[in-house]
Amino acid sequence: MRIARFSLDGNVAFGVVEGDAETEGGPVLDIIKGHPFAEFERSGQKLPMDKVRLLPPVLPNKIVAVGRNYAEHVKEMGNEVPDTPVVFFKPSTSVCGPHDPVGYPSFSSEVHYEAELAVVIGRLCKDVPRERVKDVILGYTCGNDITARDVQRAEPQWARAKGFDASCPLGPWVETELDASDLGVMCTVNGEQRQLGRTSEMIRSVEDLVVHITEAMTLLPGDVILTGTPAGVGPLNIGDEVAVTIEGIGTLTNKVVKRD
Amino acid sequence: MRIARFSLDGNVAFGVVEGDAETEGGPVLDIIKGHPFAEFERSGQKLPMDKVRLLPPVLPNKIVAVGRNYAEHVKEMGNEVPDTPVVFFKPSTSVCGPHDPVGYPSFSSEVHYEAELAVVIGRLCKDVPRERVKDVILGYTCGNDITARDVQRAEPQWARAKGFDASCPLGPWVETELDASDLGVMCTVNGEQRQLGRTSEMIRSVEDLVVHITEAMTLLPGDVILTGTPAGVGPLNIGDEVAVTIEGIGTLTNKVVKRD
Repeated sequence: MRIARFSLDGNVAFGVVEGDAETEGGPVLDIIKGHPFAEFERSGQKLPMDKVRLLPPVLPNKIVAVGRNYAEHVKEMGNEVPDTPVVFFKPSTSVCGPHDPVGYPSFSSEVHYEAELAVVIGRLCKDVPRERVKDVILGYTCGNDITARDVQRAEPQWARAKGFDASCPLGPWVETELDASDLGVMCTVNGEQRQLGRTSEMIRSVEDLVVHITEAMTLLPGDVILTGTPAGVGPLNIGDEVAVTIEGIGTLTNKVVKRD
Repeated sequence: MRIARFSLDGNVAFGVVEGDAETEGGPVLDIIKGHPFAEFERSGQKLPMDKVRLLPPVLPNKIVAVGRNYAEHVKEMGNEVPDTPVVFFKPSTSVCGPHDPVGYPSFSSEVHYEAELAVVIGRLCKDVPRERVKDVILGYTCGNDITARDVQRAEPQWARAKGFDASCPLGPWVETELDASDLGVMCTVNGEQRQLGRTSEMIRSVEDLVVHITEAMTLLPGDVILTGTPAGVGPLNIGDEVAVTIEGIGTLTNKVVKRD
């Protein structure tokens, strides 16, 4: 099931996506009664998706991201495969949704895309044993771990390089029924392919990461884990349209704009 | 004015602290009508402070922390003074309050205290000019940037080393009328002094940090900036009582306990 969060006429709601671009009349959203993190029903009240504005599908309290998790990307950055996952945070204020503009930050002149599988946590959890990982995951969405590469090189901690406003596009919806172990992850810029990997190439699997992260910290419903990016990272310029596509989920598209 | 957040019989409220340990009958809390981030009044309904449980004085969405901001501490860690502030995040799930237990993390055997002045942001802000910094600060409290030093050495990003549950005690209250430019910052363990510095020794001032951080990201009301720790960091063991005292604010005390 695909659960989108959207606004229409100033109201915010969740809806189940029915159909796709090939469906006659286009996809619709069946408005949810209740909340996707708890019990909910479909209302049967349906809206054409092209009439609403899709929002980030969740509002994470925190995003726990993982660096150096695809061997080819580790190599292109001149790094070694780390002994333990490289874990860092992106703040809630970095989140934006599908088609939201990404403002080019004032303090960087080298901003990169990074297409990533995003895991959406469904329930409060700590010290999750491997065999219970599937129980704490609500689903998956597409993420773009946008990075000020020059700042990342200059500063030992990545809070500014990877935590600036709109540096974490998420969407277009959460897919709740998906085996995430071998999905294609693609990034295009202005329609041209830049990254193409498979989640099966991740050095640490989703299960490894949930176990490792929750050994240290509680995850809350809506928190997001970004699982690392495949090889092929590169620059974004003002005016570019960047799209992250994950097999079985969909496409997250954002435009890079000049900041006001 | 000192604003505390507290619970009593399952209700949570804010109150203005009146009096102190020397006052006859002890300090009281004048319950606030409204919210400290907006317009509020004192209700005149007063509770003895020893009848309530003090909570973290704010619930930050994010904690933006700064490393290597006191020269003597930079030296004791064998580091160089950085060209730009070393900025990292602690998540909301790391926050605990005065007298809350700090569970010794399972994945570390070297946990350190770090006494720090904590800046509490009062309003949503981005790109704050230096002369407006005072307008976005609600006040100050004491913070303890508890750190798994062994994990910090082993992992290039500090999310696990400094982001584990209860690694960010805050309190006991927010002092809203304070010149923070030259305050004593002390840490004791079991009553014995371990750190003693002054905020005037900070390499980057509170103004510098707010300007630098908000160049990259929006701060929200209740967000906290931890401003770095003076020299003298060292280990905490299970059973230790660690206390951070900041001149003009008060004392934040926590006990280190074995995790369940």
